[in-house]
Amino acid sequence: MHFSSDNWAGASPIVANALANAGNGFHPAYGADDLSRRITDRFCEVFERDVAVFFVATGTAANSLALASILKPGGIVLAHHQSHIAVDECGAPEFFTGGGKLVTLPGARGKLDAATVAAAIARYQPPAVHHGRPMAVSLTQASEAGTVYTPAEVATIAGVAHKAGLKLHMDGARFANALAALNVSPAEASWRSGVDVLSFGATKNGCWCAEAVVLFDPRGAEEFGYARKRSGQLISKSRFVAAQFEGYFEKGHWMDNAIHANHMATRLGSVIDETPGARLLFPVEANEVFAIWPSAVSARLRARGATFYDWPASGLEPGEGPGEGETVVRLVTSYATRLSDVAAFIEAFGEAVRP
Amino acid sequence: MHFSSDNWAGASPIVANALANAGNGFHPAYGADDLSRRITDRFCEVFERDVAVFFVATGTAANSLALASILKPGGIVLAHHQSHIAVDECGAPEFFTGGGKLVTLPGARGKLDAATVAAAIARYQPPAVHHGRPMAVSLTQASEAGTVYTPAEVATIAGVAHKAGLKLHMDGARFANALAALNVSPAEASWRSGVDVLSFGATKNGCWCAEAVVLFDPRGAEEFGYARKRSGQLISKSRFVAAQFEGYFEKGHWMDNAIHANHMATRLGSVIDETPGARLLFPVEANEVFAIWPSAVSARLRARGATFYDWPASGLEPGEGPGEGETVVRLVTSYATRLSDVAAFIEAFGEAVRP
Amino acid sequence: MHFSSDNWAGASPIVANALANAGNGFHPAYGADDLSRRITDRFCEVFERDVAVFFVATGTAANSLALASILKPGGIVLAHHQSHIAVDECGAPEFFTGGGKLVTLPGARGKLDAATVAAAIARYQPPAVHHGRPMAVSLTQASEAGTVYTPAEVATIAGVAHKAGLKLHMDGARFANALAALNVSPAEASWRSGVDVLSFGATKNGCWCAEAVVLFDPRGAEEFGYARKRSGQLISKSRFVAAQFEGYFEKGHWMDNAIHANHMATRLGSVIDETPGARLLFPVEANEVFAIWPSAVSARLRARGATFYDWPASGLEPGEGPGEGETVVRLVTSYATRLSDVAAFIEAFGEAVRP
Amino acid sequence: MHFSSDNWAGASPIVANALANAGNGFHPAYGADDLSRRITDRFCEVFERDVAVFFVATGTAANSLALASILKPGGIVLAHHQSHIAVDECGAPEFFTGGGKLVTLPGARGKLDAATVAAAIARYQPPAVHHGRPMAVSLTQASEAGTVYTPAEVATIAGVAHKAGLKLHMDGARFANALAALNVSPAEASWRSGVDVLSFGATKNGCWCAEAVVLFDPRGAEEFGYARKRSGQLISKSRFVAAQFEGYFEKGHWMDNAIHANHMATRLGSVIDETPGARLLFPVEANEVFAIWPSAVSARLRARGATFYDWPASGLEPGEGPGEGETVVRLVTSYATRLSDVAAFIEAFGEAVRP
Repeated sequence: MHFSSDNWAGASPIVANALANAGNGFHPAYGADDLSRRITDRFCEVFERDVAVFFVATGTAANSLALASILKPGGIVLAHHQSHIAVDECGAPEFFTGGGKLVTLPGARGKLDAATVAAAIARYQPPAVHHGRPMAVSLTQASEAGTVYTPAEVATIAGVAHKAGLKLHMDGARFANALAALNVSPAEASWRSGVDVLSFGATKNGCWCAEAVVLFDPRGAEEFGYARKRSGQLISKSRFVAAQFEGYFEKGHWMDNAIHANHMATRLGSVIDETPGARLLFPVEANEVFAIWPSAVSARLRARGATFYDWPASGLEPGEGPGEGETVVRLVTSYATRLSDVAAFIEAFGEAVRP
Repeated sequence: MHFSSDNWAGASPIVANALANAGNGFHPAYGADDLSRRITDRFCEVFERDVAVFFVATGTAANSLALASILKPGGIVLAHHQSHIAVDECGAPEFFTGGGKLVTLPGARGKLDAATVAAAIARYQPPAVHHGRPMAVSLTQASEAGTVYTPAEVATIAGVAHKAGLKLHMDGARFANALAALNVSPAEASWRSGVDVLSFGATKNGCWCAEAVVLFDPRGAEEFGYARKRSGQLISKSRFVAAQFEGYFEKGHWMDNAIHANHMATRLGSVIDETPGARLLFPVEANEVFAIWPSAVSARLRARGATFYDWPASGLEPGEGPGEGETVVRLVTSYATRLSDVAAFIEAFGEAVRP
Repeated sequence: MHFSSDNWAGASPIVANALANAGNGFHPAYGADDLSRRITDRFCEVFERDVAVFFVATGTAANSLALASILKPGGIVLAHHQSHIAVDECGAPEFFTGGGKLVTLPGARGKLDAATVAAAIARYQPPAVHHGRPMAVSLTQASEAGTVYTPAEVATIAGVAHKAGLKLHMDGARFANALAALNVSPAEASWRSGVDVLSFGATKNGCWCAEAVVLFDPRGAEEFGYARKRSGQLISKSRFVAAQFEGYFEKGHWMDNAIHANHMATRLGSVIDETPGARLLFPVEANEVFAIWPSAVSARLRARGATFYDWPASGLEPGEGPGEGETVVRLVTSYATRLSDVAAFIEAFGEAVRP
Repeated sequence: MHFSSDNWAGASPIVANALANAGNGFHPAYGADDLSRRITDRFCEVFERDVAVFFVATGTAANSLALASILKPGGIVLAHHQSHIAVDECGAPEFFTGGGKLVTLPGARGKLDAATVAAAIARYQPPAVHHGRPMAVSLTQASEAGTVYTPAEVATIAGVAHKAGLKLHMDGARFANALAALNVSPAEASWRSGVDVLSFGATKNGCWCAEAVVLFDPRGAEEFGYARKRSGQLISKSRFVAAQFEGYFEKGHWMDNAIHANHMATRLGSVIDETPGARLLFPVEANEVFAIWPSAVSARLRARGATFYDWPASGLEPGEGPGEGETVVRLVTSYATRLSDVAAFIEAFGEAVRP
């Protein structure tokens, strides 16, 4: 009954197999191998356009390099105050951008809205070097609250950003889960809605270590190549990432994984929602469930072998927090979450909440 | 007949198996899993002392973070002018150190000697903020010329460095090959000879992606942990690196790989050395062969399917370079180099050199 | 009638004279001259203890180098959301610290309080590399709202910071104005209240260009020297800064200047406070007046030749902002503000507010 | 008899006066004042074209910001191995460029030649991210050896650089001395010869603290403005720099100063050149004299009150260095060097060399 993180699962058998199959033979390093090239083509198919693709080692590196490809001196990134780049990356975006600044904004359910973004941008008018200049908006899809931006919402924010000369970055550590929730194409959820640069995560959804930055404007590729190498993110045996992506994209495996993960989260969420004494903090739209229940319930569930994290109330919006004696918890599902474990958890939960 | 790079091989079956076996089940992320902890213990055994171990994604990151853990503002790294950190890492050491400077030094056969290092340090006396301050010496073991520092040589340089308050970093991208050449223990080749921080590479010697920084003074661990995360090098599914190391260290697999690779290089080297019309540029001490022969020989070998790189003469010391119509070539062997390929190459070489 | 900024005045005659007197003769550069040394001694007297003093060119550099002397990788600075380092320095603190992060906190009247700081620190417990680590609290004295921390308030915040291992930085761009308001000694307002590093500004209070970083723990001096040089802040003809400080400290000139400036602000403030149709946004404690009045009043005053800036409402706390048709304005006085100009402004104001 | 550095002199009376005159009244800060604008116009006249001008506090900052305006990730600066940016700026160029790399090249008499630059650039062909990419050539005018590039030499190097896509930076800390030596116009010595960005130093030639970066392509101005502010180099009371430049440019004052300084150096140089037992290391072309003489001579001169620095032999080209018992010394003259001091030195020198 492991719901701590989608990072707790290993690689899916299909991905693991693809990697095992890439083991033999000699192939050029640093992305000049056929497999790596083929995967770039695969990304172009997936996104229905020419894209530049850069494998990197971590989601933090993907986000930070993506933002560094946008920001210039004095550059500011507008992001949700709960976003991964703002609170979970130890200043990596600031480091990679040589001192770029993150200005964090509030937003219900882990999401920014266009009006908030527009107001934030307006504060930098007229331009003055003292204040720096907003150059990017970063959205997390699915968000840190497990919610999902609709393409229309993304497009509206993109419109606000582009009008003011900002680029739109999407942190897609759980991009597949968002697609599964929205039932739209990757293109629709990204560049057709105005996304300029995408951090495309596959690690949480069935790989060992497969992250990529997707530039929808491939003219930035030369620049990005140097920036990636300079930050120690150019992997020598590139085919080991490429092989994982090969399995990942094979016959819709990635979407199967995400659909399963979301389905497991929906199950958990609907039971919690219907249970007196517990409630959902956010609607369950992807593969994360945020719930509030008495702290004693957590203790009882853990005693039964369930793992999950308490969620810090400090990051929540006013009014979102728990009451006296309550805790906010986060349950995360993944491709590897078994239906039997969900069932076992639900049973344990029922007993824990009505002891 | 692939001798382009030890990066062209995949993962060894033993390493690939170890990774495949780590696939199932749920384990904490970010290095808090049992396997990752076990591997840290394994490193302590291998090095016969308490060490702090940090997995990272690339050798460039290992070197750059290692140096960043040593340098303070104005800090200078003294390194060989052919060293990987100086010419193959796109400024990553400068980037990770926030503007640290590499001062490169000459040295025969790809190696620094203690007198050169001492003279370089002396230039910064008396201290003056204008010039910066040397804070680290970095040695590459085995060197970029395929040669190896003896423990006594390392210890002498370490003595010079430590006396002046500098730390000694070792770029061990081919550390196993050096050990195999020297037939000494890992401890002897590193901290017992005065190495303070080691970039421990396993990727070139049979892994997909397994690099580590080893701090022989574990008190630097807290600092390093933040620095690693901030640079996007904290891998979420840490066990995927740990699993590779598990296979790597199993029953001396890593040393078997290195011994084999060195043996293949020695074979190639001795044949070249004995062949009129060709000569060795450097003694073959690890898994790299640097040779000088007529450019036509290269063309004929490539026509027979051999792959290898020309080596830029520009980086060589005075007197090391090729003559008119000659080329410097580099042949690299690895765990995966087959004896049959070496034999085929030798045959092709014999014909190419006496057409 | 210039109330735009204390940066709009030139240098006071006493400071200008001191500089003119330092013009002749040959003296060692880079701070090795007698005058620069004498001024360091003067700082030690002023602060009643051994301090290390570093001249720099700007307040932004002073703050950024001060913070860089404290922060390590993953380091976070806690600061007021209206603070200069957060909103007026174009990311310089992030740049100088190699990617340090500013986490901004609310606080009435431009000031942080100890409880808010303590709560912010508590969010980083238990430590996790993902979140980074708070390493400094930065207070602005006098604050961006023209208010002043009492020594007791500083000491309470310092206690919270030190207990958690953080250092306390004070941005003293208007330190003299704060001293004048508090009528306490420089020592009392700084290290005796727990300040570790002080940005000591003199430019706004009568110099052309004289800023210094004061380290109350002089052991950091070697480090700081390299950091300053590396950031292009080591001024070659150091005596030109030293000479300004000589005039500044002569016979209490700096305090005379600050007392005058504060007095001028108090006059303006009390008149505004008593005038129906206008009100003070913050109490006038130093040399800045923040007022709210009908936008038409501003237009009328400007038509009469008064200069002052509108103040963005966006940075204010909830409840602090202006009503419909109102503007927030900032009036700043300095050593150079003439009583006659204050009188003229007051008269113009009276007519503008009751047209 | 002070010949230690042109940094040892104060400000010239004309410059000091101009600054004193700018003392009164209220003027906008941060370069928005009339005087600062007028000086920008003056620069346009001086250079006979539209330029963007940025005042900064130090030559180190000027060089570092200039290079940062050119370099992108992986960027490399080619510079002479004795250049100020390489050996006297404590890593500032690396810091400001976020990890740019300086690759240093040899060259007789402190100067690069076009063939050396071309060969260095050629080493980076074909491009590979590993090696980084040369993006700038930096020349020092006058050079660190007191020699001067002719416009033709600059143009040839510029041709090589531009052809390969590199920009040409000129470190003009002693630009006026070079102009005086060459007797050509500022335009001829800079953009007409292919210089893209110029560090225009005035501090050594009669100011307290007046350095500027001149962009011959003003389109880079917006970018530069943010970069300058972010590095703490935007001086608040901008007119204090502008005023110095006003005096500096008044009636050819700057050229008068430089001509005088060069003349004093020529006198010293010709005497040394004609004196048995001493010799010039480099031809005296600007305001620096490099000489080799017995170490005892230095001691005797210093006993007579002369100040000058020994020059490290380590940085010299092969064959340039001193013999046994000899020292390399550097004598620097400035606008403030008195003819009487030169005469006194020459007399003392005559006695010291033939005791």
